[in-house]
Amino acid sequence: MRLQLMTWPAVEAYLKDSTGIIIPIGSTEQHGPNGYIGTDALCPEFLADGIAEATGALVAPTISTGMAQHHLGFPGSVTLRPSTLMAVVQDTVNSLSRHGFDRFFFLNGHGGNIATVTAAFSEIYAESSLGTAGHNRPPVRCKMQNWWDCKGVRALSKELFGDAEGGHATPSEVSLTYYAYPDHIPEAKIDPPIAPTGPIYDADDYRRRFPDGRIGSDPSLASVEAGEKLYRAAVDDIAEKYRAFLTAD
Amino acid sequence: MRLQLMTWPAVEAYLKDSTGIIIPIGSTEQHGPNGYIGTDALCPEFLADGIAEATGALVAPTISTGMAQHHLGFPGSVTLRPSTLMAVVQDTVNSLSRHGFDRFFFLNGHGGNIATVTAAFSEIYAESSLGTAGHNRPPVRCKMQNWWDCKGVRALSKELFGDAEGGHATPSEVSLTYYAYPDHIPEAKIDPPIAPTGPIYDADDYRRRFPDGRIGSDPSLASVEAGEKLYRAAVDDIAEKYRAFLTAD
Amino acid sequence: MRLQLMTWPAVEAYLKDSTGIIIPIGSTEQHGPNGYIGTDALCPEFLADGIAEATGALVAPTISTGMAQHHLGFPGSVTLRPSTLMAVVQDTVNSLSRHGFDRFFFLNGHGGNIATVTAAFSEIYAESSLGTAGHNRPPVRCKMQNWWDCKGVRALSKELFGDAEGGHATPSEVSLTYYAYPDHIPEAKIDPPIAPTGPIYDADDYRRRFPDGRIGSDPSLASVEAGEKLYRAAVDDIAEKYRAFLTAD
Amino acid sequence: MRLQLMTWPAVEAYLKDSTGIIIPIGSTEQHGPNGYIGTDALCPEFLADGIAEATGALVAPTISTGMAQHHLGFPGSVTLRPSTLMAVVQDTVNSLSRHGFDRFFFLNGHGGNIATVTAAFSEIYAESSLGTAGHNRPPVRCKMQNWWDCKGVRALSKELFGDAEGGHATPSEVSLTYYAYPDHIPEAKIDPPIAPTGPIYDADDYRRRFPDGRIGSDPSLASVEAGEKLYRAAVDDIAEKYRAFLTAD
Amino acid sequence: MRLQLMTWPAVEAYLKDSTGIIIPIGSTEQHGPNGYIGTDALCPEFLADGIAEATGALVAPTISTGMAQHHLGFPGSVTLRPSTLMAVVQDTVNSLSRHGFDRFFFLNGHGGNIATVTAAFSEIYAESSLGTAGHNRPPVRCKMQNWWDCKGVRALSKELFGDAEGGHATPSEVSLTYYAYPDHIPEAKIDPPIAPTGPIYDADDYRRRFPDGRIGSDPSLASVEAGEKLYRAAVDDIAEKYRAFLTAD
Amino acid sequence: MRLQLMTWPAVEAYLKDSTGIIIPIGSTEQHGPNGYIGTDALCPEFLADGIAEATGALVAPTISTGMAQHHLGFPGSVTLRPSTLMAVVQDTVNSLSRHGFDRFFFLNGHGGNIATVTAAFSEIYAESSLGTAGHNRPPVRCKMQNWWDCKGVRALSKELFGDAEGGHATPSEVSLTYYAYPDHIPEAKIDPPIAPTGPIYDADDYRRRFPDGRIGSDPSLASVEAGEKLYRAAVDDIAEKYRAFLTAD
Repeated sequence: MRLQLMTWPAVEAYLKDSTGIIIPIGSTEQHGPNGYIGTDALCPEFLADGIAEATGALVAPTISTGMAQHHLGFPGSVTLRPSTLMAVVQDTVNSLSRHGFDRFFFLNGHGGNIATVTAAFSEIYAESSLGTAGHNRPPVRCKMQNWWDCKGVRALSKELFGDAEGGHATPSEVSLTYYAYPDHIPEAKIDPPIAPTGPIYDADDYRRRFPDGRIGSDPSLASVEAGEKLYRAAVDDIAEKYRAFLTAD
Repeated sequence: MRLQLMTWPAVEAYLKDSTGIIIPIGSTEQHGPNGYIGTDALCPEFLADGIAEATGALVAPTISTGMAQHHLGFPGSVTLRPSTLMAVVQDTVNSLSRHGFDRFFFLNGHGGNIATVTAAFSEIYAESSLGTAGHNRPPVRCKMQNWWDCKGVRALSKELFGDAEGGHATPSEVSLTYYAYPDHIPEAKIDPPIAPTGPIYDADDYRRRFPDGRIGSDPSLASVEAGEKLYRAAVDDIAEKYRAFLTAD
Repeated sequence: MRLQLMTWPAVEAYLKDSTGIIIPIGSTEQHGPNGYIGTDALCPEFLADGIAEATGALVAPTISTGMAQHHLGFPGSVTLRPSTLMAVVQDTVNSLSRHGFDRFFFLNGHGGNIATVTAAFSEIYAESSLGTAGHNRPPVRCKMQNWWDCKGVRALSKELFGDAEGGHATPSEVSLTYYAYPDHIPEAKIDPPIAPTGPIYDADDYRRRFPDGRIGSDPSLASVEAGEKLYRAAVDDIAEKYRAFLTAD
Repeated sequence: MRLQLMTWPAVEAYLKDSTGIIIPIGSTEQHGPNGYIGTDALCPEFLADGIAEATGALVAPTISTGMAQHHLGFPGSVTLRPSTLMAVVQDTVNSLSRHGFDRFFFLNGHGGNIATVTAAFSEIYAESSLGTAGHNRPPVRCKMQNWWDCKGVRALSKELFGDAEGGHATPSEVSLTYYAYPDHIPEAKIDPPIAPTGPIYDADDYRRRFPDGRIGSDPSLASVEAGEKLYRAAVDDIAEKYRAFLTAD
Repeated sequence: MRLQLMTWPAVEAYLKDSTGIIIPIGSTEQHGPNGYIGTDALCPEFLADGIAEATGALVAPTISTGMAQHHLGFPGSVTLRPSTLMAVVQDTVNSLSRHGFDRFFFLNGHGGNIATVTAAFSEIYAESSLGTAGHNRPPVRCKMQNWWDCKGVRALSKELFGDAEGGHATPSEVSLTYYAYPDHIPEAKIDPPIAPTGPIYDADDYRRRFPDGRIGSDPSLASVEAGEKLYRAAVDDIAEKYRAFLTAD
Repeated sequence: MRLQLMTWPAVEAYLKDSTGIIIPIGSTEQHGPNGYIGTDALCPEFLADGIAEATGALVAPTISTGMAQHHLGFPGSVTLRPSTLMAVVQDTVNSLSRHGFDRFFFLNGHGGNIATVTAAFSEIYAESSLGTAGHNRPPVRCKMQNWWDCKGVRALSKELFGDAEGGHATPSEVSLTYYAYPDHIPEAKIDPPIAPTGPIYDADDYRRRFPDGRIGSDPSLASVEAGEKLYRAAVDDIAEKYRAFLTAD
């Protein structure tokens, strides 16, 4: 169930059964020569629908833009400053907690979000710990789950792509978006087959190190078929993780 | 063209022809007994695709959550504080302006965003006017266009719904979302037919004044057919406005 | 009664009868070749005294500097960033609400303030709606009233100046300040008689479009006599609006 | 010359001769049983006119609300948070420096502003020192001058009031406002004659220590005559200080 | 060389040879019944001296308080909000980069800092990527090195303490501080020997789950001897990492 | 007792006897040709140990970096922006007040901190006065004590150094650090013997006025012996002030 397609009385009814919600969070940034700029937002958004079907979870609107300052050397990339993204996460949690939600499951599609979103959780908890949280707010729990960070997906990525998986613009994430959006698959020459690797600093440095945007990957291996397999593995694994989050002590 | 479904080299190519971009911006908030919580984000997102088709414009990912503090008395509503929303708009413009975009057309679906987004534009311009804008940034122009705020749509709303249009959870916006998402149309009793009207203060006050969330409207009149008409009128009118924005002195 | 000229026991006494207050808010910015830089602050300040006399209202000190980034191309103009002005409005309301004031009537003299001050109101309400408002604070209501935005004034402006009224450095506002400060009326050549019109972006763009600062107006028509008429019309209309604000449900 | 009563071409002309400006800054806060709530803003505003006449200086609009959190226990008191006041000072300086002003003489009427305004100056300088100041900005110098903090005034206060001068709601400041606004002088019983003294923490603590708002003073000694003497002494001393500030190395 | 014990001409001389600096960063928080509250700051501070001796590096003053909101249920714990800690890291880097430093090696003693400090690095890089970094600043590189996160230390911890190492108030970190500060070793009963494990949310939740503050550890095994071994291993490993950071492409 | 070397149960025990704490606060900045960059942090840190011994006070970790924007023209100097330092002070007080601490004695080593730290105290009190302080927080009192600002120290400085004491890089503060850290005393030519004096603006201006960093001082007179005398005088005087702070009404 997408929150966007529900009425408020339906949300009121949902809250009688569950106080959990899935919040897809991604990024708008270059994904190499043949990856969609929306890859990191599209993946968790697409998966969230499947997980929701499996678990009955409510899905909030996707936070489509994340922390992607290092990609600003490539046209179309957008970043929120970490401080901005933290405020977005904070306001989202504080709004929903007013209604009684208290288990926030952020389904993440972008490695670059991990630190900032984790820091945002701490900023939220600090409001409770310092005693400044809103009077309306129950004790909340936030969890970030990277969609690729589960057993089934990792095994599949390794099996399908081995060392060509790399770190950015990976064949796995590109495959998943091809499966979700098969009508837009671009043609592109990928050269060299395996992109270079290295550390990440600012946008100019990034573009110098990684001229076509990829890190360590060969996304020419991406396919709709691989995407479908990854989709099924991810939905299964993450549905279980979501259930565990809801029922944990 | 949705930015999310393009590659960065395709954006690079686009920028040779145009430096304009459409950014749908909405809200996640109650829309009465039979309106979708996502109404204000879904409307501009859906229209943007049509306008893009008509004009060749690029469409950024939707900013789905806006300034909706007054709706927090109803489950499922989410707000960004004005200061947060301003930072989101600022970062979006500053990121894209690095690539050469300089005409930002915010297609807005939510009256409650108008003041805050306008203030955000001023915060952006103030960076130029005070001399603190990024060195990479061209002079930028931002415009906010409410989707309902054009001749054809206003005429149609009046003709179709007259005084039952009201101010929030209007039959026009509900119709447009029913046309876009016909599979989720909820059943709901609307009573009284025309909702009360009044001023807007905080969330508790709002819920007291407007018990089911509507303001002055009768959304039981909404229909897929009306939605289709409104869609066509809006796309035509706004496409023209977008073109005028790009070519203005 | 100006708050500045009262003692605290007198304010304590006032609060037994009324919890409303008028807060003049303006701007410090160029007003063309023959308008005072303080026009937008002087007008509401001057009117507030008349309205206070008519209604018994308390008048807070004028917020003399507002959001005027677009005027920074002209010497003497000062802006607060929107975020700063929002904090000023927030602190003012939060301070006075501690004493029991709960009806805040901002009498505004500057179009450029509208969006930012409205956003500030939302930031204030959001504190209540998210549950973070101060424990000392009653539910508050804020209203912004532009001094020119009332029937009598609009009719008079039209009658006196017609199309020469324009949008910035209007003969109406200049007249009002000439009536209030008749000893400083400057001589200036106004050329062309009617200034150009157009959209507003940053300060450099503004100065290019509007070389002497005016928008669409011919302030050479301003006079002390017109100012006096406008004063009487504004005081009458706004006094009524203030009374209605205090007694509204 | 008050900036508010000038046109922008007149400011342009002024800047050819001088790049200095006087900015009165005060507070809106209780001043005991017989002192005006606006005392700390009215004093520097009134003096600035005299100093301007003596020196030809331009006078910016008064910043009428300052840092007065400790007075919030008394009706009518208003505070800006230190962080807000710092932003106001910063924006004022950054706006005016764009036009070429580079000597900012803050004429202060409130002891509680000293720390915050000094910190604001450091925040402004830090922009230069860290290299983030606006490209339009010349090196700026800011000075805060408390109106009572000059030889002539100190001598006069001592001579006139001795130990009854005290620290807040002093007969000197009350006298100065009586001289400036003789039509509003309130009647009030001052008891005990000399108020208690002590440290300043938050508003509740302040009200407990200083039940009628005064600190160490007997403002029943205030008079229009004393105010006139203090006015002359202050104008003379501060005019000299302003001239020295402009010409200093 | 500790920066605190150098003169500025000595720093000027240092910069001719190296533009790197080590910045110890820790936390002030409970470390169970027998661990020092300063453990996370004392460890990197103590190690930095050894690494500096081995590499000739300059060592900045320790940032002794970090992100520790979850420990606020235990007396003596102090947290910076993530947003505050980010500003501290930002200002430190921006100050030192003015002098020519461009390789910032944060030697970290606290797991709870990782996300926030990483987010701070992104905020710093975003200034470059968005074009708002100070004009004085060279391209900078920041690296965070957790002191325990190197081969030699991990092997030793495993060998010495096995499963009793745990996650917070570990025998390894306690040993290191006992070696550094042998005169303050407290007596304390550790019961149960191995503390519980679990997720981390806010301070109340933390205290409920981990009643004496430890997570999964048995710090009664800590000893000065173990501390000395860990010290040597850490200094060796991290000195090498620091050298590699300076010379990396 | 240094908080860093205590366990949390020991702090719990301490709080039964006292709710006071000493927080050394300094700066990291040039101190002329022969003064340590850490002078302003090392002095209060060193003194705090002595005062703690005399009074039984608890000593928090030193805030080693302060507001030093004006020193950024000299290598090794670091500043926090005033807004950052205020947040650090605020978070420190708010954390410790949760545990029951309510008397915060900041022992300061840097004149440049005075305004900002005082403003930070007001920001903290404003949270109480506006009603937004954390629910866990008792009414708090903060005091800043400059280590040199006591009778015994002032007398000694005058006696030992007379006019050569000056204002920055004074022989007194340099002596105190030589006494504390006698193994690092640098050799340096001091020329001219007495440094120039003048006002402080930004970093470029500072370096122009004070080419070797000193203001008005001759630190070649500094000695370990003088440092020891100053140490004893400061500890005696400040211990008494601390006791008075704890017991004051």
